[in-house]
Amino acid sequence: MSEVIGALRETVASLHAELTRYGLVAWTAGNVSARVPGQELLVIKPSGVSYDDLSAANMIVCDLDGVVVEGDLSPSSDTAAHAYVYRAMPEVGGVVHTHSTYATAWAARGEAIPCHLTAQADEFGGEIPIGPFALIGGDDIGKGIVATLSGHRSPAVLMRNHGVFTIGKDARAAVKAAVMCEDVARTAHLARVLGQPVPMAQADVDSLYDRYQNVYGQPGRQLSAD
Amino acid sequence: MSEVIGALRETVASLHAELTRYGLVAWTAGNVSARVPGQELLVIKPSGVSYDDLSAANMIVCDLDGVVVEGDLSPSSDTAAHAYVYRAMPEVGGVVHTHSTYATAWAARGEAIPCHLTAQADEFGGEIPIGPFALIGGDDIGKGIVATLSGHRSPAVLMRNHGVFTIGKDARAAVKAAVMCEDVARTAHLARVLGQPVPMAQADVDSLYDRYQNVYGQPGRQLSAD
Amino acid sequence: MSEVIGALRETVASLHAELTRYGLVAWTAGNVSARVPGQELLVIKPSGVSYDDLSAANMIVCDLDGVVVEGDLSPSSDTAAHAYVYRAMPEVGGVVHTHSTYATAWAARGEAIPCHLTAQADEFGGEIPIGPFALIGGDDIGKGIVATLSGHRSPAVLMRNHGVFTIGKDARAAVKAAVMCEDVARTAHLARVLGQPVPMAQADVDSLYDRYQNVYGQPGRQLSAD
Amino acid sequence: MSEVIGALRETVASLHAELTRYGLVAWTAGNVSARVPGQELLVIKPSGVSYDDLSAANMIVCDLDGVVVEGDLSPSSDTAAHAYVYRAMPEVGGVVHTHSTYATAWAARGEAIPCHLTAQADEFGGEIPIGPFALIGGDDIGKGIVATLSGHRSPAVLMRNHGVFTIGKDARAAVKAAVMCEDVARTAHLARVLGQPVPMAQADVDSLYDRYQNVYGQPGRQLSAD
Repeated sequence: MSEVIGALRETVASLHAELTRYGLVAWTAGNVSARVPGQELLVIKPSGVSYDDLSAANMIVCDLDGVVVEGDLSPSSDTAAHAYVYRAMPEVGGVVHTHSTYATAWAARGEAIPCHLTAQADEFGGEIPIGPFALIGGDDIGKGIVATLSGHRSPAVLMRNHGVFTIGKDARAAVKAAVMCEDVARTAHLARVLGQPVPMAQADVDSLYDRYQNVYGQPGRQLSAD
Repeated sequence: MSEVIGALRETVASLHAELTRYGLVAWTAGNVSARVPGQELLVIKPSGVSYDDLSAANMIVCDLDGVVVEGDLSPSSDTAAHAYVYRAMPEVGGVVHTHSTYATAWAARGEAIPCHLTAQADEFGGEIPIGPFALIGGDDIGKGIVATLSGHRSPAVLMRNHGVFTIGKDARAAVKAAVMCEDVARTAHLARVLGQPVPMAQADVDSLYDRYQNVYGQPGRQLSAD
Repeated sequence: MSEVIGALRETVASLHAELTRYGLVAWTAGNVSARVPGQELLVIKPSGVSYDDLSAANMIVCDLDGVVVEGDLSPSSDTAAHAYVYRAMPEVGGVVHTHSTYATAWAARGEAIPCHLTAQADEFGGEIPIGPFALIGGDDIGKGIVATLSGHRSPAVLMRNHGVFTIGKDARAAVKAAVMCEDVARTAHLARVLGQPVPMAQADVDSLYDRYQNVYGQPGRQLSAD
Repeated sequence: MSEVIGALRETVASLHAELTRYGLVAWTAGNVSARVPGQELLVIKPSGVSYDDLSAANMIVCDLDGVVVEGDLSPSSDTAAHAYVYRAMPEVGGVVHTHSTYATAWAARGEAIPCHLTAQADEFGGEIPIGPFALIGGDDIGKGIVATLSGHRSPAVLMRNHGVFTIGKDARAAVKAAVMCEDVARTAHLARVLGQPVPMAQADVDSLYDRYQNVYGQPGRQLSAD
């Protein structure tokens, strides 16, 4: 038990380096969490701590109501949203939040990202949807994420006027979705600046999504984490 | 006293690395200063020295008229503007100046950045305002900064045809404001390129600003510095 | 034989660092391969493995039907396309695939990049052409690459709604073409955003291409790799 | 004599790191040279060699007709243009060539960059001018640079459909001009995307230019190199 949490602390702390590597976050504005398998607990970044200073030791363990169980610091101010997702979506093992630039520009306009790229079909299975505007401080953000992503292929939601939340079977898969969300948001933005992308047939989108979810990656490895 | 200044020299020198990390500055075009608490002094970058070569030892200590008190090099050519701010705004402990690209593009048009993002509401409490055009070499830039930011929520001003000045309770807070200013300037630019952002209700902006200034971060830590 | 393959494993593994250095790839979405000279074999990246974890040891050796000959992991999911190119174009010694952002934005619109830059005339000899939309999983992508690039000066093709494939006499030349493709795609995009580029005379394009292919670089070194 | 050349080899080799640091060059497409003071010689990058592999030892020394005097490799394919500038402009001690993205986008349209920023007034004294289209291989590029920059305040010229050449009293000053040229080209581009910059009065541009050339930097240090 303690060993599982120790390993997750290490994983969650180090996955934040992918957010900085891909330029998804400025200052301290982004966070990764993981569910502790088989327990009503999550591991999350402390609030307002620089990415340079993150380590397994200063990660925060909370219950699924966001109450701190282990840790000296306050958890991320987005903890309530993460916790709500874990309560409502038992298949989710990881959650990521960013204000990554291009995706947040779509979110500011309240505009879903239409699917015109094979990479988007692979990872998101179609458009990346818009979630509602919601104020921080209660369950409204969590409810908006869950209402938008439940039954949707996309592991990413663009919360209106705010930013991106992604989910995954584990924290690494949610980080991958956050990286790919910004990547396709940027390409889709640029494509639109000079005209209109060529539409893709829905059957092609479906075919790509199905193949990517079931064939890609290494046999015996969890594909959506790669 | 000397120990306080020594620590501030170290802080000011090392905070310049955040300007290069976030790509806010080219060559030597940007600077950070800090007020020496309880003294009529400030610590600032020397003029025209590469960011690679900054150290506690080559920082310059000036009085609040910009006259050098300690240091072998000339202080930043923007020292008069920094000094004016410290004289006029006793609550300010740090000042930063950059020509960061997206913010300066808004400044070139003389256009304030309207608030369509929760991150902007958090840090700036609404729009990021435009200050007047002013020539370097006297108190005009300082006066323009103070006239624009006095009584304004925003810790950042876009000086017309010039660039960004930010203030904070300390140098780290002013650096954070400079980083977040460019971040929201970039996202706001991109959102506008393909249409119009969805407006945010003033009450929501107010609520986010109030919460961020009073709740975010670690208890007992100075929040606006994180 | 084994020594040649060992050296190619090293080369192919390390060339992936150029894809990350120039920001051409996100997560694991891009790959480099090389033909084994004089053998019906190719060396390629394993599927879904992070660029940080690539080494000579985990590269995959396949025959030209994409069947694994050496290696414990699955080869890149794009192996069929690489293999098809090697079967159809005996002069090709290296193939690269990316979803680099600006080039893929042109691909999303199905729009070839017109030649308005001396750098594009040098490396591509004119426009960078569009290839057909093709689903992954058979020979369709490979056929589209070969149909587009056979007899064309350009070593790069923009596969519609997908991304970039480049070819070269060796893997390094194909990587160079991928780097330059994104560079000219970005410049051409920006030029068009604010107006129309000045056309270049076809004779000038021809003259630049001829000179670059025959004069540039170091005598006795294979020029298209530099 | 040999000591002077040895020091210049070191300087020229290491200044290329500024081109990669600021993202001004892709692959090997950009070069720095320096005049050897008091001699009819210049030091320049070898052709087609990766920036990672540059060192004092592999720099090339040429006479002012571009004939190699010291060095085992061929000099940059742009050597004739550098040499022409040194022959025609005795006050020039350094020359830089890049295809930096935003500046080259202006060059592709044949459009000078108008001066709407104090940073541009400081370094360039007004607009950054367009030079003619010219083919590589003779003196045409050099003539175009010299014809455009002679008597002009700007140390940078945008060669049409090609890229940037900058000059300076030494190689470091020319590198600074190349860095600042891309910086203001990018900001000017972005400002124009969403509207029109506010014009600056010519008297203000003149005043800024005069002050920057005569006051900025450290007393006793050569200011335009900082």
